[in-house]
Amino acid sequence: MVFLYKSDPVRGRQWAEVFAAEAPDIEFCIWPDVGDPEQVRFLAAWEPPPDIATRFPRLQVLFSSGAGVDQFDFSVLPPQLPVVRMVEPGIVRGMVEYVCHAVLDLHRDMPRYRRQQQKAEWQPLPVRTAAQRRVGVLGLGSLGQAVLAQLAVFGFACAGWSRSRHAVPGVQCFAGEDELPAFLARTDILVCLLPLTDATRGFLDAGLFARLPQGASLVHVGRGPQLREADLLAALATGQIAEAVLDVTDPEPLPTMHAFWRHPHVRLTPHIASMTQPRTAAAAAIANLRRFEAGEPMEGLVDRSRGY
Amino acid sequence: MVFLYKSDPVRGRQWAEVFAAEAPDIEFCIWPDVGDPEQVRFLAAWEPPPDIATRFPRLQVLFSSGAGVDQFDFSVLPPQLPVVRMVEPGIVRGMVEYVCHAVLDLHRDMPRYRRQQQKAEWQPLPVRTAAQRRVGVLGLGSLGQAVLAQLAVFGFACAGWSRSRHAVPGVQCFAGEDELPAFLARTDILVCLLPLTDATRGFLDAGLFARLPQGASLVHVGRGPQLREADLLAALATGQIAEAVLDVTDPEPLPTMHAFWRHPHVRLTPHIASMTQPRTAAAAAIANLRRFEAGEPMEGLVDRSRGY
Repeated sequence: MVFLYKSDPVRGRQWAEVFAAEAPDIEFCIWPDVGDPEQVRFLAAWEPPPDIATRFPRLQVLFSSGAGVDQFDFSVLPPQLPVVRMVEPGIVRGMVEYVCHAVLDLHRDMPRYRRQQQKAEWQPLPVRTAAQRRVGVLGLGSLGQAVLAQLAVFGFACAGWSRSRHAVPGVQCFAGEDELPAFLARTDILVCLLPLTDATRGFLDAGLFARLPQGASLVHVGRGPQLREADLLAALATGQIAEAVLDVTDPEPLPTMHAFWRHPHVRLTPHIASMTQPRTAAAAAIANLRRFEAGEPMEGLVDRSRGY
Repeated sequence: MVFLYKSDPVRGRQWAEVFAAEAPDIEFCIWPDVGDPEQVRFLAAWEPPPDIATRFPRLQVLFSSGAGVDQFDFSVLPPQLPVVRMVEPGIVRGMVEYVCHAVLDLHRDMPRYRRQQQKAEWQPLPVRTAAQRRVGVLGLGSLGQAVLAQLAVFGFACAGWSRSRHAVPGVQCFAGEDELPAFLARTDILVCLLPLTDATRGFLDAGLFARLPQGASLVHVGRGPQLREADLLAALATGQIAEAVLDVTDPEPLPTMHAFWRHPHVRLTPHIASMTQPRTAAAAAIANLRRFEAGEPMEGLVDRSRGY
């Protein structure tokens, strides 16, 4: 029985160590070494090889090596093959850190203090308490909920929106298209943690920005194609959006000449908000394949009809 | 019975509203209106008026309107007059926000990402987990302990140092001069929250920086005169200190020509980490004067022999 890994080989060697220690019954192979193709039962990949159905006829589960599955072309995957997103504590912790930093950065006017520093200007700005700052998170999956739990500890006024109804302790939850305007109208700092699907492509557009209070800010940690870049630049120009923090762009890397790079009200990071930690990811994959072998539901199993 | 307030009058009006609602038995006056000087029993001030002993012969308690008392000249205050620091939830929350932001900013390499952005450089950097990042807080008073409690939630490896022995759950506590070298040797991000006293003036100097691991960072939210500025500039030049976040300077405002303003590895804010929130501060003062009237110990009572 082979577990085949096809992603960054440096990380793969850390996966291999975890498998050797915790799942010695499984042969762990790092692409392009695939072992006996007939024996490949599990595949962890960011970009699966082509024709996996014929190449690995006994493949039982496809694991994404990252939090998203939007990089998969489902039309070429065997229809019955279970596909699993990576849900592991390393990804969650990284995202909680990044979003808390971004929200505190905006809440405490740090973009403006950095601009003042460039002018050697010592000027305290009026303070708002966290309870007076309304943070709204788009997407209430495992990442969105973990982020909101930590923001609530700081005392922010927290709300979340998702397509389907959720209940999160201490968080005002909105659901569906009908409740999106009310969610946006009460949000000073908007965090996008939506998965990339046909329904969320271009979601962050002029119409959405117009429903936020004037001077709201955006933290985008979803996927690049969810943002209409020209609409954001226009909203920044009018002050409808005061500040934007972008960890994802389309394409990535962002071309050197793009306006975001040198925009004084845009902070840009190179898709580093959250990265799979190889050791905890390998342990999460082992836990999931043990569930699969025992006939139990796997964590992060993708509903192909939703696309996430 | 008069409670006299001598500090920012805009904030004073918010104090007055709280006193009217919660302590209607006390006459609340805002300097320069002192009411009947014979009736002044309580004084809240940042800078007390001169000769308070003769001017207010029946004064019973002096409250600092801010977290520190280093602005008071104890030599001119009546020796038996109780002096109380401001301990109120607004100050604590502001400091927790500021320090968590600064630590996350350093932990997630945001200074370097901001410099990369200026060069339109898309370059992810290696990630360390919070558990691998050792944060050390100098000063284990109410602010230091609150900051450490929140940093521990993020999973940082937390330690604290203070002159006298403290025990804080989840925090490795060091005490006294003897244990300072060991505390510094294990600290990647050093946070200074010490009170300003004769013992802490110039505390952050070349000798202290040399005991940190190479490439450590500094978050200074204590008082400006605790830092030897030339020593910090020298440590930044060699890379012994990688990054510094300074909220306090000496003097304040920092002169326009000072090297800190445009240093690429210094982030400077104008003493805004934490500010007294007028409403919660007034409520805290009322709670303390009720304790005083009842013969109970007041929160934040200053030990003049220590200076804080």
